[in-house]
Amino acid sequence: MNTNRIVHTDIEIANNADMKKIAEIAASLGLSEQDWEPYGKYKAKLSLGVLDRLKDKPNGKVILVTSINPTPAGEGKSTVTVGLGQALNKIGKKAIVALREPSLGPTMGIKGGASGGGYAQVMPMEDINLHFTGDIHAITAANNALAALIDNHIFQGNQCEIDPRKIVWKRVVDLNDRALRNIVIGLGGEKQGVPREDGFNITVASEIMAILCLAKNLDDMRERLAKVVIGYKTNGKAVTVGDLQVEGALTLLLKEAIMPNLVQTLENTPAIIHGGPFANIAHGCNSVIATKMASKLSDYVVTEAGFGADLGAEKFFHIKARLGDINPDAVVIVATIRALKMHGGVTSEALSVENIAGLADGMKNLEKHMETIDAFGVPYVIAINKFITDTEAEVAYVQKWCEERKVEVALTEVWEHGGEGGLSLANTIVEILDQQTSNFKPLYALDDTIEQKITTIAQKVYGADGVNFTDHAREQIDAFHANGWSNLPICMAKTQYSLSDDSALLGRPEGFTIMVKEMRASIGAGFLVALTGDVLTMPGLPKEPAALKMDVDQNGNAIGLF
Amino acid sequence: MNTNRIVHTDIEIANNADMKKIAEIAASLGLSEQDWEPYGKYKAKLSLGVLDRLKDKPNGKVILVTSINPTPAGEGKSTVTVGLGQALNKIGKKAIVALREPSLGPTMGIKGGASGGGYAQVMPMEDINLHFTGDIHAITAANNALAALIDNHIFQGNQCEIDPRKIVWKRVVDLNDRALRNIVIGLGGEKQGVPREDGFNITVASEIMAILCLAKNLDDMRERLAKVVIGYKTNGKAVTVGDLQVEGALTLLLKEAIMPNLVQTLENTPAIIHGGPFANIAHGCNSVIATKMASKLSDYVVTEAGFGADLGAEKFFHIKARLGDINPDAVVIVATIRALKMHGGVTSEALSVENIAGLADGMKNLEKHMETIDAFGVPYVIAINKFITDTEAEVAYVQKWCEERKVEVALTEVWEHGGEGGLSLANTIVEILDQQTSNFKPLYALDDTIEQKITTIAQKVYGADGVNFTDHAREQIDAFHANGWSNLPICMAKTQYSLSDDSALLGRPEGFTIMVKEMRASIGAGFLVALTGDVLTMPGLPKEPAALKMDVDQNGNAIGLF
Repeated sequence: MNTNRIVHTDIEIANNADMKKIAEIAASLGLSEQDWEPYGKYKAKLSLGVLDRLKDKPNGKVILVTSINPTPAGEGKSTVTVGLGQALNKIGKKAIVALREPSLGPTMGIKGGASGGGYAQVMPMEDINLHFTGDIHAITAANNALAALIDNHIFQGNQCEIDPRKIVWKRVVDLNDRALRNIVIGLGGEKQGVPREDGFNITVASEIMAILCLAKNLDDMRERLAKVVIGYKTNGKAVTVGDLQVEGALTLLLKEAIMPNLVQTLENTPAIIHGGPFANIAHGCNSVIATKMASKLSDYVVTEAGFGADLGAEKFFHIKARLGDINPDAVVIVATIRALKMHGGVTSEALSVENIAGLADGMKNLEKHMETIDAFGVPYVIAINKFITDTEAEVAYVQKWCEERKVEVALTEVWEHGGEGGLSLANTIVEILDQQTSNFKPLYALDDTIEQKITTIAQKVYGADGVNFTDHAREQIDAFHANGWSNLPICMAKTQYSLSDDSALLGRPEGFTIMVKEMRASIGAGFLVALTGDVLTMPGLPKEPAALKMDVDQNGNAIGLF
Repeated sequence: MNTNRIVHTDIEIANNADMKKIAEIAASLGLSEQDWEPYGKYKAKLSLGVLDRLKDKPNGKVILVTSINPTPAGEGKSTVTVGLGQALNKIGKKAIVALREPSLGPTMGIKGGASGGGYAQVMPMEDINLHFTGDIHAITAANNALAALIDNHIFQGNQCEIDPRKIVWKRVVDLNDRALRNIVIGLGGEKQGVPREDGFNITVASEIMAILCLAKNLDDMRERLAKVVIGYKTNGKAVTVGDLQVEGALTLLLKEAIMPNLVQTLENTPAIIHGGPFANIAHGCNSVIATKMASKLSDYVVTEAGFGADLGAEKFFHIKARLGDINPDAVVIVATIRALKMHGGVTSEALSVENIAGLADGMKNLEKHMETIDAFGVPYVIAINKFITDTEAEVAYVQKWCEERKVEVALTEVWEHGGEGGLSLANTIVEILDQQTSNFKPLYALDDTIEQKITTIAQKVYGADGVNFTDHAREQIDAFHANGWSNLPICMAKTQYSLSDDSALLGRPEGFTIMVKEMRASIGAGFLVALTGDVLTMPGLPKEPAALKMDVDQNGNAIGLF
C-alpha cells in the first residue's frame, strides 16, 4: 500500500463522481416511465405497481451483510454492502444494493453522514444525508399528526376514555435533541390542552418507521397503522389508531414515503435506499418492499441489517424475512482485524499495533456468529474489511484460521478501491450461491410463548445460560398475553457491543444470563420489544456538533458532510 | 345560472385535470434543462441561477391581489389569483401565478387544502396540500436543529451565557397541536438537559419561513440567518445564530427549500408556489425570489398577500416590495357581496338574502381599502368574486357604485368557469397597466422612529386616531432602539376581520385607537413585529378534524382533501 497517496474525504470523492441520470439507471433495470417518478436528476421513487407487474418473475438472490460485534466506529457494513454490489456488477452480474436511509440527527451530531464510504458510496450523498426524498419528514409528520390527534381527542371530550397517564405514543423529531426526552405538555390553562408527561423520540425510532419497513403494500400499511396501540384506557384496555379512526389520514401522509427510492453507487450500480428503523427498539433493516422489488429487478440483492449478527441478522431472519416472506440466500459476516483484536482483549489505544495473540483470542467472537448463521441454515462468507493499519501477518492469520475450518473468507478493500477491491468477495459469494442452497429456518416458532421465544434467542444466538425477567416485565408479558399479542416475533433491544447484555463483556462471554427489564408492544409493526437495558431513543448532541462545520460553498455544494 | 348543474368538489375537478408534463411547462417559459430539477412528473424546483442569467431582462408587471376585510370563510383571493392568471393566458398574454405554499396543519384540521378552488386551482393539488417538494419540512428541520443546538449549547457549558429564561427561539411542527403551546422541557435529571419553559409554534410562523421568503439569494439567506436573535444573556445582550456559529448548517438544510417550485393551474398556466409565512407575526407573502423570477419569466405576475389590504397589501408594500426591490404595478381588490353586506351590519345567517341597503352600507369598508391603495400610488381594480347567492340587483349596485366613482370594476366567476370567468378582470387589468403608471411609494420611511412607523400605519391604513403602547411594549421599543434595530420596517399583528384591532368592529370604524401590547424582534427576517392582541402561533384542531375523513383510494389518489 502506498502510504504517500492523497486520501480524499467522502464528500470530495462524491463531488467528483460521474453520475448517470436516474432515467438511465432505471432503464438499465428494465423500468418504464410509468414505473418511477424523478426527484431531481439523480433520484427516483419507484411505483409499487412494479411489484404487481413482476410478481411472477423469479426472485434474485438475497445476500445479507452482517458483522461481528462492532467497535464504536463500526465494522463498515454499509461500505462492504455498496462495494460488493459494485464488485458483482464488475464481474458481469446484475446486482442491486438495498440500504437504509440515514437519519438527519446523527448527521448533524457526530457522524456527518452515513452512505457508505471512500470509493464504496451511494450517490448523491449530500441529498441522501439531508432531506433525500422526504420519507423521514413524512414519517415525522404522520407520527406527530397522530400525537396531535390523540391530545385533541382528549381535549375534545375523550370519547375513547384514554388515560392521559398511560399514553405510550410519543412525538418525534429527526434530530438529536436531549432536552425533549422528558417534557410536560398541555400547560397554560384549560384552553391549551390537558397537562401530561410526554417526550420525543428521534423519528427513526417511531413505530411508523418500522411499519413502513414491514408493510407489504399500501393496504397492509393501513391495516398495520390501525393496529398501533397509542395508550390504554383507565381500565387497562388498549386504545388503537383504529379506535381514533385516523389510519386513513396517516396512510395519506405516507403514500409517497412507502415508495422505494432508486439512486446509484459511485460506480453506477443501482441502489435502492428505503426506510431506516432503529436497530434496538425496532428491527434495523431497510424496507421489505425495497428488498422484494430489488430481488425482482436484479439477480443479486445485497442488503444489510443494523449492528452485529446477534441483533441485525437475528432480526432480519426472525422479523423481516419471516413477516416479509423473503428467503435469505447467503450471508456476509464483516469483520475487521481491529475489532477482532478488541475482542481478544487489546485496548483501543493499541489496536493499530500488530498483535497476533490478541487477534487469535478475539476470533471466538466471529466463531459464535458463524455458529448462529449456521443454525439458521444460511451459507456464509467472512469478509475481512481491510484497514491501513492491518499487517500482512494479521490478515494471513485470519485467512488461515478460516481455511482450517473450511470457511469461505475474502479480503475486501472496497473503501480504498471500490468494486475492484471487492472482486474476491463477489466471486466467492457467487460461488457459494451457485453451489450451496440456503435452508433458512427460524430458530423459534411464532406460537412459542413470549418467554420461550426470548429464551431461544438468548441461548442460541447470544450463548446465554438463560433469561431473567423483572417483575415489571413479567406483568407486561401477562398483559400482552391477555391482549392476544403472544403470537408476534420478538424484537430484542440489547447492547450491540457484546453478545451479552453487558457492553463490557467482549469476545465470547460464557456463563451469563440476560435480564429483560421491560417490554413494549409494537402491534402495528408486528413485534414485541424486549428491553435488556436502558435504550436511548433520543440521542443527544456532542460538545462540538458536526453542524458547526457545515455550510454550502459558492457552487451550491455541501461542506461538512464527511 | 343553472342551479341544476352538478357541482364537483375541488379534488374531483383536480383528479380529472389534464396536466402537462412539467418539462413542457418549463420549456414554455424558455427554461433549459439546467434551470430546473424535476420532483415527480408535475413539479419542479427552479435554479437560483435563472435570476442571475436573466438579471438584465426587463421585469414583467407585478399584480398584487388583495381584498377587503374578509369573512371567516375568506374572500377567495387565491382563487381569483389563479383565475386571473388563467384569464390573462386566455387573452394571449404571458402570465405566471405566484402563490404561497399551504401548511399541513390547517389542511389536517379545518381547511382540507388551500390551492385555489373550483376551476381556478393549482395542480397537483394533492401534492401541494401535503408534502409538496418538502420546503416546509426543511424549514421545520432547520428551525428545530437550531433549537436543539441552543439547548445543547447550554447543556455543554453555555459559553455564550444564554439565559434559559430569556430564550425566544421556539420549536415548530407543521401541525395544529395545542398541547405543545406551553411546555416544560429538559426534565429528567442532569443528563437530560436544563429544565426551562418552552413551546412550539406552527412551522409557517417560524422566522426561518419569513427569512426564506425575504432572502435575495443563498448568501443573503445565510446573513439573515446569522442575525436571528435566539434569546438574551443574563445581562440583556442579544444572542444570535451567528454567535452559535450555526448559520452555515441552517443554510445547508435550506439550500433546496430556497429554490422556487414550478407547477401549473388547471388550465396549464405556469404557477410558482414558494414560501408561506404567517400573515400576522410575519408578512404573509410568497417569496421575493419566486416573485422576481416569475417577473423575469413572464410579462405578468399575479400574486397575493394574506388577509385584507390593511394587513396583506400594507406588508407587501412596506416589507416585501421595499426589502425585495419589487415594483407593484397594479392591485386587484377582491370583494364578495356577502362580506360587503356583513360590513353593512347584515348577520351571517341573512347573508344569502338580497339586501341592497345592507350592501350599500358595507361599501365603506371597500372604500377605505381603495383610499389606502391610492395612498400608496398604485392603480387598482375591484374584483367582485361572484357567489351563487348574489342577486343581479346586488351585483349591479356594486358596479354602479364603482362607475359613479370612476373606479374600474370587474365581475369574476373563476371558481365556476376558470379563466373564462376572469376575462373581464384580465382585460381591465391589462388596460390599466397599459394606460396608468404605478407611482408606488411607501407611507413611512425606514428612519422614522418605531412609534412613528406604527402610528403612520394605524392612521393612514386603518383610519385610527392614534396608537397607544403598553408599558411593556414601550420598554421593548426602548430596548430595540438600544440594540440598533430602529431602522427596520414594522410587521403589524392585528385581527384580519376589522380595520381596527377589535374584530367586532366591521365596516369602517372611526374614532378608535390601536393598542400595541407587545413587540417582537425578527432581526433575521428584517422587521419588528407589533402585536395588537393575542396572536395564536399554534392553532388547535377542531372536534372533528378533517383528518378523520382522509384516506387513499384504490388508485392511490387522496380522499378527503376538499
